Amino acid sequence: MNNSYGTLFSITTFGESHGPAIGVIIDGCPAGLDVDEQFIQAELNRRKPGQSKITTQRQEEDAFKILSGVFEGKTTGTPIAIVIENQDQRSKDYSHIAEKFRPSHADFTYEAKYGYRDYRGGGRSSARETAARVAAGAIAKLFLKQAGVEVYAFVSQVGDIKAPHYTTLNLSQTEDNIVRCPDPATAEKMIDLIDQVRLERDTIGGLVTCVIKNTPVGLGEPVFDKLHAELGKAMLSINAVKGFEYGSGFAGITLRGSQHNDEFYAEAGRVRTKTNFSGGVQGGISNGEDIYFNVAFKPVATIMQDQPSVDKHGNETTVSGKGRHDPCVVPRAVPIVEAMAALVLADFMLRANAAKKFNT
Amino acid sequence: MNNSYGTLFSITTFGESHGPAIGVIIDGCPAGLDVDEQFIQAELNRRKPGQSKITTQRQEEDAFKILSGVFEGKTTGTPIAIVIENQDQRSKDYSHIAEKFRPSHADFTYEAKYGYRDYRGGGRSSARETAARVAAGAIAKLFLKQAGVEVYAFVSQVGDIKAPHYTTLNLSQTEDNIVRCPDPATAEKMIDLIDQVRLERDTIGGLVTCVIKNTPVGLGEPVFDKLHAELGKAMLSINAVKGFEYGSGFAGITLRGSQHNDEFYAEAGRVRTKTNFSGGVQGGISNGEDIYFNVAFKPVATIMQDQPSVDKHGNETTVSGKGRHDPCVVPRAVPIVEAMAALVLADFMLRANAAKKFNT
Amino acid sequence: MNNSYGTLFSITTFGESHGPAIGVIIDGCPAGLDVDEQFIQAELNRRKPGQSKITTQRQEEDAFKILSGVFEGKTTGTPIAIVIENQDQRSKDYSHIAEKFRPSHADFTYEAKYGYRDYRGGGRSSARETAARVAAGAIAKLFLKQAGVEVYAFVSQVGDIKAPHYTTLNLSQTEDNIVRCPDPATAEKMIDLIDQVRLERDTIGGLVTCVIKNTPVGLGEPVFDKLHAELGKAMLSINAVKGFEYGSGFAGITLRGSQHNDEFYAEAGRVRTKTNFSGGVQGGISNGEDIYFNVAFKPVATIMQDQPSVDKHGNETTVSGKGRHDPCVVPRAVPIVEAMAALVLADFMLRANAAKKFNT
Amino acid sequence: MNNSYGTLFSITTFGESHGPAIGVIIDGCPAGLDVDEQFIQAELNRRKPGQSKITTQRQEEDAFKILSGVFEGKTTGTPIAIVIENQDQRSKDYSHIAEKFRPSHADFTYEAKYGYRDYRGGGRSSARETAARVAAGAIAKLFLKQAGVEVYAFVSQVGDIKAPHYTTLNLSQTEDNIVRCPDPATAEKMIDLIDQVRLERDTIGGLVTCVIKNTPVGLGEPVFDKLHAELGKAMLSINAVKGFEYGSGFAGITLRGSQHNDEFYAEAGRVRTKTNFSGGVQGGISNGEDIYFNVAFKPVATIMQDQPSVDKHGNETTVSGKGRHDPCVVPRAVPIVEAMAALVLADFMLRANAAKKFNT
Repeated sequence: MNNSYGTLFSITTFGESHGPAIGVIIDGCPAGLDVDEQFIQAELNRRKPGQSKITTQRQEEDAFKILSGVFEGKTTGTPIAIVIENQDQRSKDYSHIAEKFRPSHADFTYEAKYGYRDYRGGGRSSARETAARVAAGAIAKLFLKQAGVEVYAFVSQVGDIKAPHYTTLNLSQTEDNIVRCPDPATAEKMIDLIDQVRLERDTIGGLVTCVIKNTPVGLGEPVFDKLHAELGKAMLSINAVKGFEYGSGFAGITLRGSQHNDEFYAEAGRVRTKTNFSGGVQGGISNGEDIYFNVAFKPVATIMQDQPSVDKHGNETTVSGKGRHDPCVVPRAVPIVEAMAALVLADFMLRANAAKKFNT
Repeated sequence: MNNSYGTLFSITTFGESHGPAIGVIIDGCPAGLDVDEQFIQAELNRRKPGQSKITTQRQEEDAFKILSGVFEGKTTGTPIAIVIENQDQRSKDYSHIAEKFRPSHADFTYEAKYGYRDYRGGGRSSARETAARVAAGAIAKLFLKQAGVEVYAFVSQVGDIKAPHYTTLNLSQTEDNIVRCPDPATAEKMIDLIDQVRLERDTIGGLVTCVIKNTPVGLGEPVFDKLHAELGKAMLSINAVKGFEYGSGFAGITLRGSQHNDEFYAEAGRVRTKTNFSGGVQGGISNGEDIYFNVAFKPVATIMQDQPSVDKHGNETTVSGKGRHDPCVVPRAVPIVEAMAALVLADFMLRANAAKKFNT
Repeated sequence: MNNSYGTLFSITTFGESHGPAIGVIIDGCPAGLDVDEQFIQAELNRRKPGQSKITTQRQEEDAFKILSGVFEGKTTGTPIAIVIENQDQRSKDYSHIAEKFRPSHADFTYEAKYGYRDYRGGGRSSARETAARVAAGAIAKLFLKQAGVEVYAFVSQVGDIKAPHYTTLNLSQTEDNIVRCPDPATAEKMIDLIDQVRLERDTIGGLVTCVIKNTPVGLGEPVFDKLHAELGKAMLSINAVKGFEYGSGFAGITLRGSQHNDEFYAEAGRVRTKTNFSGGVQGGISNGEDIYFNVAFKPVATIMQDQPSVDKHGNETTVSGKGRHDPCVVPRAVPIVEAMAALVLADFMLRANAAKKFNT
Repeated sequence: MNNSYGTLFSITTFGESHGPAIGVIIDGCPAGLDVDEQFIQAELNRRKPGQSKITTQRQEEDAFKILSGVFEGKTTGTPIAIVIENQDQRSKDYSHIAEKFRPSHADFTYEAKYGYRDYRGGGRSSARETAARVAAGAIAKLFLKQAGVEVYAFVSQVGDIKAPHYTTLNLSQTEDNIVRCPDPATAEKMIDLIDQVRLERDTIGGLVTCVIKNTPVGLGEPVFDKLHAELGKAMLSINAVKGFEYGSGFAGITLRGSQHNDEFYAEAGRVRTKTNFSGGVQGGISNGEDIYFNVAFKPVATIMQDQPSVDKHGNETTVSGKGRHDPCVVPRAVPIVEAMAALVLADFMLRANAAKKFNT
């Protein structure tokens, strides 16, 4: 099932950028959970277009309806269907690319794979699909909150501008600025850079860092479904992502084992590590320390410039820069990264629980 | 099923480092494929311990037996079971760590998750499990070969020593030296560094690059099971991997869209791209260009030095450096990366084929 | 994923009897298929309540909306979301059973499993969920039609009244009467019996027979996912089903092998069987003969009579006969059986196709 | 994955009738379970050929080896691989049918599906595969035993000879005779009938009834993965099975709702039902009463008589009765039915447990 993610706490998304609606079915959420609809909307608002001067100006309220699985404000253990209608579609913006392949978009590969496609705004390949993930992720967050687990993502780099290491930041300040970097000075520079890139009718890449706190020990399954392997897949499934690293990540290449190993010690009856190059995961299983990882985003493919390309008949053509798009994807990617992280964690919570009381 | 990977061309591995045997069941391999047993053994030999001075000196022949699914030299479409017996086990080497948690190993997390574990050599968490993957990957490679798809991995970095970009290398030279870097001059430096690290009773990290050539257009499924997301998960599921990037990867963060976009052009009836920052995948689907990605490995956790730690009772203790281990994992990781890449590709070949003739 | 069925051509349903809507996501339908919306509505009409004097009088138009996956009348290969709003809900009919367990309903088991439930009309356990299956099944039928595969179900027994063997019937006459039995004389007796049972404020069981014609040879997977095993699961997942048999079925118990074996012969280059006790499936794989099977339905649990029971606090109570219900479920079950059969077949069509061109 | 069964407590089987070995991987069994190897062997002995005068005389010890997942007598939570070598293969018995299609066997459908097959003894389609299921089922039984759940199957019918209803029988007497019917008088008649059929070089069908006692309330998932739907699939996946019914089954067709409904009452703080037409399952979920079901087996297809058929080239031919086969499959099917029932229950135990502590 290509449009589903998760084993026990699972989601299935549907919908195209310019169709009637997008949405998601969440299957496997435990029963009796209070569904805070205001929180779900607030999460959607963090992702929605038109929220600030550095995002696309497409206007979508992203108002959602819950069609099932919730009774008198609580989950019932049955599938939760959430639908978000598309409003500001302007499909005409896309008639000029019905037969053209936009560079570094999915137009060509969809055409080749399916032979028939909804070209409007990228159809299914549009990042609009991630609104459904954010709605589902909000439910996952409500579930995790009960268990004390907290998920924080923020923008840690735009172009060459980098934020300090997460351990030096106050992660509760992420929402204080429109670029979602909890370091105010860095945030300002990032916003200026994005604004400049936008004026140049260009786009730029960025990095999102995610930190998960208070994870119970024992989440993740050995061998193929390692906790960090699923986090990696979940992140790489987000539009425009090109890389994933956790703990020491790529920097670990140049370290010695004697530097990199995280020494164990005991603290208040818990086994802890002094350093955390492991990123909170050892052998694919959470060890109770902070889980942290980086997600690299490429520059948005749609630029406000003419680009040479070919059409579906193989003829040379030019793709003009039209429509409304983001100059940099990372400010809106923050809630998406959090949503996918929350979904991965919620799923592993249930998976770990399945055998727990039977293990002796 | 936590020990399985793949949807249609799938594998399930079993076995512990010091149990009677390890092995794999390959389910879904098409019928009628010639099974070249010498090739399978050659692949296992590339991964096996004791192959050179820069790998662990544990001696394992890694001789395999096929128990099912092959009749008169050809696959029958039924599950192929492959078993590799463990020989040079020296379980006693591990009695000293039966109750101790080795730093940056999976000892603590397994103990916490299962309550009961085979501590000998890490048991199930040992990289010995990857021999089963290599055997299965050899079958996948034989399958891909029929379709013309080729998978090349090589060591592109050890510590600070880096090989040139893959497009400048002759990938058929990878096996010419013991570190598996196709650039002879770089290989020499890498070998020297690993040898030095070994003498210091320490370990060091490295990078493996993988290139897949002649992939058909249309592999990969949109949204969650994007081709690169599955490649990422597959790589991150390999022991000691800390990061994955494809195409422009983390370097894409600092690029502009106008630099990063891959312009389309037509060549001999095929749609091609002039550059390949996309890494051969657009919208999660292969576009026919080279697929290439990097896999970051941390330094091996077992070092020949005493390290402070705790035991399962929470008492402070010291873990001594004993046993036989690799000073750097990447030379032996090359065939593992190739095996997992081949398994991902084989699976997507079947998945893409399922609906193909029905698409109109 | 508990609310999903199918491997490659898959569905996920959602919705409760008295919530805002029910619906389904179909994932994996090939691209380019013409979506005949009138046909989908016609199929829903065959299942909808209030269609005749022998069905429940609840009024639901069961009008559907397609939210995704279809562009300009054709499928795009992306998930097809279909929503059916609930209209005639009368939730008040159910306030009297909010805390009571109706005999032979799912009230008690849901309460015990989830601790919290939508009691209105049985919530998720209501057969109303099957409307979503019928909508999805209509898409599967359109897909199968292209391949020439035809699915026919009909009522073959109500109480003691039995129709003749299917090979003697004209299956195109099934829709000619309200009980959906293609033998007019038998149909009349069935209708009279159901009407009499209804007047007695009681209910009665029945049997649905299904015949699938023109199935390609080779559908079904050996061992666990045998074609008839999946058909059995699919049928047993329909509300009120108590039994499944295919081919000779339970009658095969008393036969000798020499009577039961289906002799092969060659006809026009095809391998055929003279008899068909195998029911078109051998070793779990279709052999090209008619697939036929029987599905036994119990009498509907809701009767218009007072019944002793207990409430959720363990107190003795009485459940009164209220609401609007079917005296016999089989006339409306016919399109549901067809829908599930079509979904099973469509899935196996894709599964068989996945490896086909690679088998040598 | 066509050769796997189960979601959390899962098995994957491999092996052909006349290959080197058959076997199974059990993935998901909780850690710390005592593995009673004598019990596993005893279960295999109940299924093995040559055990009495009314079974095939093929001699197989069915001795097994555990290759992984068990350490010092206890499960570790990692995959348990079990291998059974084939010994008395006599492949030459089958050279005469290398190109012929035996009536009502899987020879033709395998040939058509795969194009290439191991014809010896039916290869993968042989019921020899069920030994692997019995070994895995023994582990599942050990797991269920800890939770107090008990699984009893027995032969309830051979040809026309029927045993009384299970509630009147002493199910601990099943192993007291070679036909495995706990009613001694009926058993004698069954044995006589099978012996007579054997002398006539023919075969006959039979029925196995299975009763599961002390199931916790709440097993089974609504909608598609209903407890009885999975039991049905599991049973229908056993070689030679033609039908499945649970609770009232096909007899429920002729009952009225007022007869069939199971009235609830309270007993010692538990909700019970006075009758049990529901067969222990309501809305797909266990209600704590006995789960019971019937499994219909056709007469074995191999008979000691010449039968007309065709070969793979479409030529008319004769299949001669050779080899060593069972005149009636049900005595040896009893442990297979129990094994599959135990695997289904063990899986649902874990699935139910996954969300349990989170339901509020």
